[in-house]
Amino acid sequence: MRENVRSLEIVLANGEVIRTGSLTVKSSSGYNLTQLFVGSEGTLGIFTEVTLRLFGIPETTAAARAEFPDIQSCVNASTALIGAGVPVARVELVDGPFIEAVNAFKRTNYNTVPTLFLEFRGNFDSVQSDVRLAQEIAVEEGCVDFQFVSDERERNQLWDARHSAAYAFTHQHVGYGHMATDVCVPISKLPESVTRAKRLIEELDIIGCVIGHVGDGNFHVSVAVNPNDPDSVSRAHQFNEQLVYHALSLGGTCTGEHGVGLGKRKYQEKEHGPAIEVMRAIKMALDPKHILNPGKLIDAD
Amino acid sequence: MRENVRSLEIVLANGEVIRTGSLTVKSSSGYNLTQLFVGSEGTLGIFTEVTLRLFGIPETTAAARAEFPDIQSCVNASTALIGAGVPVARVELVDGPFIEAVNAFKRTNYNTVPTLFLEFRGNFDSVQSDVRLAQEIAVEEGCVDFQFVSDERERNQLWDARHSAAYAFTHQHVGYGHMATDVCVPISKLPESVTRAKRLIEELDIIGCVIGHVGDGNFHVSVAVNPNDPDSVSRAHQFNEQLVYHALSLGGTCTGEHGVGLGKRKYQEKEHGPAIEVMRAIKMALDPKHILNPGKLIDAD
Repeated sequence: MRENVRSLEIVLANGEVIRTGSLTVKSSSGYNLTQLFVGSEGTLGIFTEVTLRLFGIPETTAAARAEFPDIQSCVNASTALIGAGVPVARVELVDGPFIEAVNAFKRTNYNTVPTLFLEFRGNFDSVQSDVRLAQEIAVEEGCVDFQFVSDERERNQLWDARHSAAYAFTHQHVGYGHMATDVCVPISKLPESVTRAKRLIEELDIIGCVIGHVGDGNFHVSVAVNPNDPDSVSRAHQFNEQLVYHALSLGGTCTGEHGVGLGKRKYQEKEHGPAIEVMRAIKMALDPKHILNPGKLIDAD
Repeated sequence: MRENVRSLEIVLANGEVIRTGSLTVKSSSGYNLTQLFVGSEGTLGIFTEVTLRLFGIPETTAAARAEFPDIQSCVNASTALIGAGVPVARVELVDGPFIEAVNAFKRTNYNTVPTLFLEFRGNFDSVQSDVRLAQEIAVEEGCVDFQFVSDERERNQLWDARHSAAYAFTHQHVGYGHMATDVCVPISKLPESVTRAKRLIEELDIIGCVIGHVGDGNFHVSVAVNPNDPDSVSRAHQFNEQLVYHALSLGGTCTGEHGVGLGKRKYQEKEHGPAIEVMRAIKMALDPKHILNPGKLIDAD
């Protein structure tokens, strides 16, 4: 998303209104303020206008689902797909327990095994060719069932399992809170990170399912937390913390897309090292009185 | 290029060494310092390590050249190609006078008409399909000759005319200096900007040829300047200035890729408006003594 923001209108802490970037595809003029402000969580200025890049609707869109006997082969397949340069628009992983929740919630009967959901876009010929190659790679990594549809209704039906997963999980654990982890690691390290997550789920006795934007090396563990049980809450926090530190040790980040806010401020120093001082200097220069979303993303001092 | 920089090691003005970004595809952690520093022209820190995203070599690469009767139809075709979402890896325009210079320099005999050079990458089927669509669009816009090659030797030969253009132009004007303009405009405004350039070339009696990365809305006018003739130098500067102000009025930028340095500092205020104060504040915060590439990109005060 970030790279599709072309221009911003921003109200600064001093009340000045600025416009960053332009409508051009590229520019070497001035500092790239647009990309500094995107993701700053309101701590540097308030956006009052966002100009986005648009894309045409592709000639052909196709979807596929690929079932695997275990999560390791499923993640390996996603890493292999990206490594081979197959231009997949989306690669999403839903693990077995999640599929089970979906089956209960939507009255479907998918095999409760780790499943990749894929989307392909382009001209008709290229999509056919990409799907063939993706299937070959998936099978090589142990895929036991590969289904492919291009009709819009069937595509939506296929994706429905993925899109219902979070609701299904919440529905499965009535009265529980829903916490989601959000680490992102280099794609080559994804199998290692997901394996660690699975091990930690067992070790800490977590009620957790894995769902991932694995094409980006980003995945979430949905954790059901009993808000009335301090131990359940504590184990969930421990789980998240250990997963984050492991991701950082792999060259990853504590948050792929959910942001820092208050909860992930404590990992900033560890993740960014001395670069955190540069972030503080920028915050101080642009918002010396700390009136913009105070306390978020970065410590005040 | 900018978006392929994943991580930087930077020495700051205070001697601290920081590392920005990570190897992950995405992150929402902290401010995006990588993109702030890329393009800062050494005014915020000195890069000692750059980590880039790599791409695999595509299954198929093909090249095409398309000749047009006039520059207007040539630019229109490039805008139509991008607008139609044809995934062209490169779209380069070389105008008639440039082809003439190439013919003299390389002893070739290309038609001295505005020519688009195209490159396509992908799997075999998709490239065939993309080339067919590109040809249809080009012909619709008035293309009179469309040649397409996929063999590597033939591809290099086809691109040679494009790659020799700057040398050919310099060779054609021995003893002259070579100045290049570098405006970039929203793709829909490209025909208007190139037409204005052509008119200014005539009005100001400039020795100038148009060459463009038109797929990005970015083009250069190569201007031959007689360094011993103050009037020739003055007209070249006037030309650049008028072209820049016209590009800015179209929502464009004074520099698509060459950078600001000293020469384009004077356009920064006009292009960025009050955002320039934010850039100054960042410069002041990170380099209060102005010891990093002083005077470049941004005024000291």
